[in-house]
Amino acid sequence: MQLSITKNSKTPIYRQIKNQISKFIYTGIIPENYILPSERKLSDQLNINRSTVVNAYEELKADGLVESIVGKGTIVLPQQALSSNQQASPALPLPWNQLFSDCIDFKPSNILEKSFHKLNNKSLISFAAGFASPDIVSIPQMQEIIQLLIQKYSKLLFQPCPIVGTPQLQNSIKNLLFSKDIQISTKQIMITSGSQQGIDFLSQLFIQPGDLVIVEEPTFMNTIQICKARKAKILSVPMEDDGLNLEILETYLKKYSPKFIYTIPDFQNPTGIVMSLEKRKRLLKLANQYQVPIIEDNPLGELRFEKEQIPSIKSFDQNNHVIYLSSFSKILFMGFRIGYLIAGSKVIEKLIMLKKYSDLHTNSFGQYLFSELLSSSFYQQHLKKAKQFYKIKRDTMYEIIQNNSLLKCNKPDGGFYLWCKLPDSINYYEFLKKIENENIAVLPGDIFFPNGNTGDNFIRLNYAYEDLAKIKVGTEKLTSIVSKLAKNKHISYEKVENEIEALV
Amino acid sequence: MQLSITKNSKTPIYRQIKNQISKFIYTGIIPENYILPSERKLSDQLNINRSTVVNAYEELKADGLVESIVGKGTIVLPQQALSSNQQASPALPLPWNQLFSDCIDFKPSNILEKSFHKLNNKSLISFAAGFASPDIVSIPQMQEIIQLLIQKYSKLLFQPCPIVGTPQLQNSIKNLLFSKDIQISTKQIMITSGSQQGIDFLSQLFIQPGDLVIVEEPTFMNTIQICKARKAKILSVPMEDDGLNLEILETYLKKYSPKFIYTIPDFQNPTGIVMSLEKRKRLLKLANQYQVPIIEDNPLGELRFEKEQIPSIKSFDQNNHVIYLSSFSKILFMGFRIGYLIAGSKVIEKLIMLKKYSDLHTNSFGQYLFSELLSSSFYQQHLKKAKQFYKIKRDTMYEIIQNNSLLKCNKPDGGFYLWCKLPDSINYYEFLKKIENENIAVLPGDIFFPNGNTGDNFIRLNYAYEDLAKIKVGTEKLTSIVSKLAKNKHISYEKVENEIEALV
Repeated sequence: MQLSITKNSKTPIYRQIKNQISKFIYTGIIPENYILPSERKLSDQLNINRSTVVNAYEELKADGLVESIVGKGTIVLPQQALSSNQQASPALPLPWNQLFSDCIDFKPSNILEKSFHKLNNKSLISFAAGFASPDIVSIPQMQEIIQLLIQKYSKLLFQPCPIVGTPQLQNSIKNLLFSKDIQISTKQIMITSGSQQGIDFLSQLFIQPGDLVIVEEPTFMNTIQICKARKAKILSVPMEDDGLNLEILETYLKKYSPKFIYTIPDFQNPTGIVMSLEKRKRLLKLANQYQVPIIEDNPLGELRFEKEQIPSIKSFDQNNHVIYLSSFSKILFMGFRIGYLIAGSKVIEKLIMLKKYSDLHTNSFGQYLFSELLSSSFYQQHLKKAKQFYKIKRDTMYEIIQNNSLLKCNKPDGGFYLWCKLPDSINYYEFLKKIENENIAVLPGDIFFPNGNTGDNFIRLNYAYEDLAKIKVGTEKLTSIVSKLAKNKHISYEKVENEIEALV
Repeated sequence: MQLSITKNSKTPIYRQIKNQISKFIYTGIIPENYILPSERKLSDQLNINRSTVVNAYEELKADGLVESIVGKGTIVLPQQALSSNQQASPALPLPWNQLFSDCIDFKPSNILEKSFHKLNNKSLISFAAGFASPDIVSIPQMQEIIQLLIQKYSKLLFQPCPIVGTPQLQNSIKNLLFSKDIQISTKQIMITSGSQQGIDFLSQLFIQPGDLVIVEEPTFMNTIQICKARKAKILSVPMEDDGLNLEILETYLKKYSPKFIYTIPDFQNPTGIVMSLEKRKRLLKLANQYQVPIIEDNPLGELRFEKEQIPSIKSFDQNNHVIYLSSFSKILFMGFRIGYLIAGSKVIEKLIMLKKYSDLHTNSFGQYLFSELLSSSFYQQHLKKAKQFYKIKRDTMYEIIQNNSLLKCNKPDGGFYLWCKLPDSINYYEFLKKIENENIAVLPGDIFFPNGNTGDNFIRLNYAYEDLAKIKVGTEKLTSIVSKLAKNKHISYEKVENEIEALV
């Protein structure tokens, strides 16, 4: 038994001894019935007071690991005795499930965890998670920018900042939005840790169990999950090719009192649909008329590859009835968790409290970095480059799919996603299994549907994350799997096409 | 009226025109009854299609800003008509307060916001917020470390990371805790956005309205606020000079079924008290016996200036009944919001869901940076330096206060805070007003008491944040204000001393 003692350690020596012996016993290095050296012998050996060893052995006895037996010395108790001893001591397991709150519904969903864990799997081709391309940022350029950042802001980068965010970033965002006809003061801006945090805060602010909320169908799965976790009932309004169906929306608004309407007007997730200008105006009018706030989530709006930008719903909102969320995770990079939320003072006031309880403020370093990027010419240049970059990726994936007549999808004017429909003749789960075996990750459509499984036979493909070579290989494999599965099965093309028309 | 048009902007030209004219009208640059240039004239002037100007004017009409009057042209409507027009349109204010959830109690408390806002006030001497010293970090050294970090981790720094944190930081924390006799696997570690986020998650996980929780009295005000916001009833156990009163605790445990016991055993906030070894063991035993989890919050434990470290409660916990929280905000820097939480799998499993809903993951850049700092010799060297640095600050502040016999305080063996009692003869609010006038910020004691105002006449002073010069000036001003206020008033020294004995 070899013990090592550090004399000027923070841990008292008796505890150092006790811990090392405990470890030896737990790990089996010292077997059952092993006789520990006598207190005198060990104290001589380690050149310490005998009382120190006595203390250590006393603690081991108290823990039920050893026993003094007269005439024999201090012996290590058998594992059997050890565990029964521990159970006799107050080690009753806690009834954790009874302790957890009923206010939150913890339905496990591993889709996202999987995406994160697969990040380091080099052989995987991932069209699943909504991540931006890691190649969009030039590391030497970032290195240079960060060097200058440290020189400019020095200690401020490492210190806390106001709960709502750094004034610099608030100001950069104000200017960015001004160029999009959203005219606000910096007091209406809260920096959030990703726009995800904005959605979470709003769910906490508005929802109490049993409340109704309105979303598009299909819609962003995280919003569905958060609203369900907060025990909201979700009313979903089907998407049409120019945005959600406003007749159904109005029926819901008449009949129920929902807490908010959640919409993604630009390159909707997962469908890629852009809401028409006319619908945006009508939607705002309806929301005002029925006194329901709108949450406008716009993570992808700036990534338009072609045609004219349509003004956001927020740009028409003169009464702060629209709460607007966005982030830089899709356009720049996601790792810093920088998003923002625009709302009127009554909402911001409450969100400040939630932010204070939650993480006090979003990391300062990231905020200063992003305000630099936004206030220089970097951002617009980068955005231009990003659009060209992602347009090529979209075209590459879309063309391969187009050439396979069995897989049908939209061609969005921007954003990250293709929303594809498999032929009905294909067994959806067989397909998902097959592509997993081929090391291709996609998101199954059903997770985007809050109520029921209308999403069967849909998949969402993110063309932004992988490089062109992997997009080609992955999409070709995917379409060939579709072909193989459909072969020798009865296929009703007409039915498939009708369904796409109805849904996408 | 001077308009400027950008031809290759994302914003359609008709909207550029409309927006500029709107702004001119709203800001009063264009007055009421002003006649806009004719559509033909403006289109010639700007060298654009007439239909573009027609569209712009149509939108202005739809917004109720202008009107076409035959024979006159397009005239700007008076402000009066403008606002009545807007009110006639669906601009009824939303009943926000009715929309907000009852699950959260939003009691405003501006203490913390104030601290953040005062960060940039150079003339202020702040002993209020629990911030570390901005001078603790050498910027040239950090610049060098960050340069190497970018070379080493490159794109990873900017990309998303697993929800629970980067494996590198989890591993560094595992090793750090191992040296403190907390033997855990990395699976028990979740990186949080400050340990604040850990407290918030635990409050969400355990508390439903009406639940009971146990805290020390006094205790960290943010924990009080979060628990109250989640509508918990707070049972508070008075502090003694070796930690909370276990007899009162046991009475509570017998009588009630609290969801958890929240404790800060090391350099307790605000009292600076360290819980004795014996009490730590008894507390764990009681908690096990009564089947209540312990939340051990340890932001300051490593900053011990003298005497031996006492092992954490977590180090005795063999059953994952103790949930352990800590962060690097006090020892390194706070701006990156890097904290961590240790718990068993049943708790971690749920927290992963809360983290996924909340901010997905803590910023990657900060995590990689901290894992580098922890895994190199930097951390231990820095910690040693920090202890010396803060010890001098503590001594400086403590000695000045000692020399003023009217203000009484403890002398903690580490941490950030002095917990001071003013003489009873002094009007507490008069004192707070006076020091505010002198531009000195302190935290009033009452905010640390969950039930009632027993904290009157206490103040918490943070000696860590300000530099030595400001500590001297500020503390001297503070003690002299105490002396002045006490002068000519009847003072019962004895009573004061007894009360300190009882409370600190």
